[in-house]
Amino acid sequence: MLKIAQKNVLIMTKQHFITLPAMPRGFHLITPYIEQVLNNCSHTGLAHVFIQHTSASLTINENADPTVRQDFESHFNVMVPENAPYYTHTYEGSDDMPAHIKASMLGPDVTVPISNGKLALGMWQGIYLCEHRNHGGPRNLVVTLV
Amino acid sequence: MLKIAQKNVLIMTKQHFITLPAMPRGFHLITPYIEQVLNNCSHTGLAHVFIQHTSASLTINENADPTVRQDFESHFNVMVPENAPYYTHTYEGSDDMPAHIKASMLGPDVTVPISNGKLALGMWQGIYLCEHRNHGGPRNLVVTLV
Amino acid sequence: MLKIAQKNVLIMTKQHFITLPAMPRGFHLITPYIEQVLNNCSHTGLAHVFIQHTSASLTINENADPTVRQDFESHFNVMVPENAPYYTHTYEGSDDMPAHIKASMLGPDVTVPISNGKLALGMWQGIYLCEHRNHGGPRNLVVTLV
Repeated sequence: MLKIAQKNVLIMTKQHFITLPAMPRGFHLITPYIEQVLNNCSHTGLAHVFIQHTSASLTINENADPTVRQDFESHFNVMVPENAPYYTHTYEGSDDMPAHIKASMLGPDVTVPISNGKLALGMWQGIYLCEHRNHGGPRNLVVTLV
Repeated sequence: MLKIAQKNVLIMTKQHFITLPAMPRGFHLITPYIEQVLNNCSHTGLAHVFIQHTSASLTINENADPTVRQDFESHFNVMVPENAPYYTHTYEGSDDMPAHIKASMLGPDVTVPISNGKLALGMWQGIYLCEHRNHGGPRNLVVTLV
Repeated sequence: MLKIAQKNVLIMTKQHFITLPAMPRGFHLITPYIEQVLNNCSHTGLAHVFIQHTSASLTINENADPTVRQDFESHFNVMVPENAPYYTHTYEGSDDMPAHIKASMLGPDVTVPISNGKLALGMWQGIYLCEHRNHGGPRNLVVTLV
């Protein structure tokens, strides 16, 4: 019985490292990548997904109609334009400084409740990778289950 | 003594499902709805509040002067206008696509420290439901206490 | 052996209260303030950092080039201007209402994975205090380690 107690303690936090393949600039559904790390989990808790970059971000939004994700890209490009006259950080390309700002507006992480071993997302919710660079390359995620 | 250890483990995560009544478009204080689920809690930890929708969001801001919440509505309507010429997701009404964008800018969740069984909010902080639709209806929250 | 199990349980959540010194309006790297509370920690988990104010915020972004932080200040001042004609909450100064809006856009908290007792930040990531007031004074943080 003591072993059972210890097991309960030791499994309370699990951490997984995922590398997403390079994706084009824009907003991309990545929910299945996160769901796969819950495979052997029967818990109630939280899934924290963190991106280890400053020019890409994570958010949760509509999972059905791809035009929503297109309109995200269009609107963020208007709200945070390239080549604004007041940018001084320009030597990494015109897409770099807007990428940093967009990344902080959307945030580097999402936290999703886990209920009975599954992400407790609403019916229309999906997890997005928001790739703000033209050529961002693969992106590293840390998924922590509490 | 083994039973005590197991009890400590088992009470570490609690989850509550709350349905907020339909509220008009705008920003609304909902702190009391969250405080009520802490009633029998004497812990230190975190309260994670998650909204299962993509056209409403949660944030934390000033809890005293209602003009702050009015100005939030005014400013977000300027920053994320209806009927922008580049929107392609338009068939759910002119308030729908802006609602999705605002929802990701503010985020679907808030995480608040719990100290001695109470939300460790600052003196002027309150939790807002940000209702971005004209007629959003009731909204479902998942509150996870860790 | 039972004692070990109980110890594991009891140390799962720690909370630290930090007061940051007053900083000028703008974006400031504060990662070392957070790292210091992890000193005696050998765990895997999450560090949640929460600011108890509504006119300053926290975010994660580029930790190397100070011009990135200058451009953040420039861009947020354009995106959320002072003296917008539709503001009604004006009696606390022209920097106050923009400060509230910026604070919700960036958010009052950051959650960072802990791996082997260290913040699992990407190579270029740092934690920012975003001071949106001209004279915001000292700012209180609550750091919860889970």
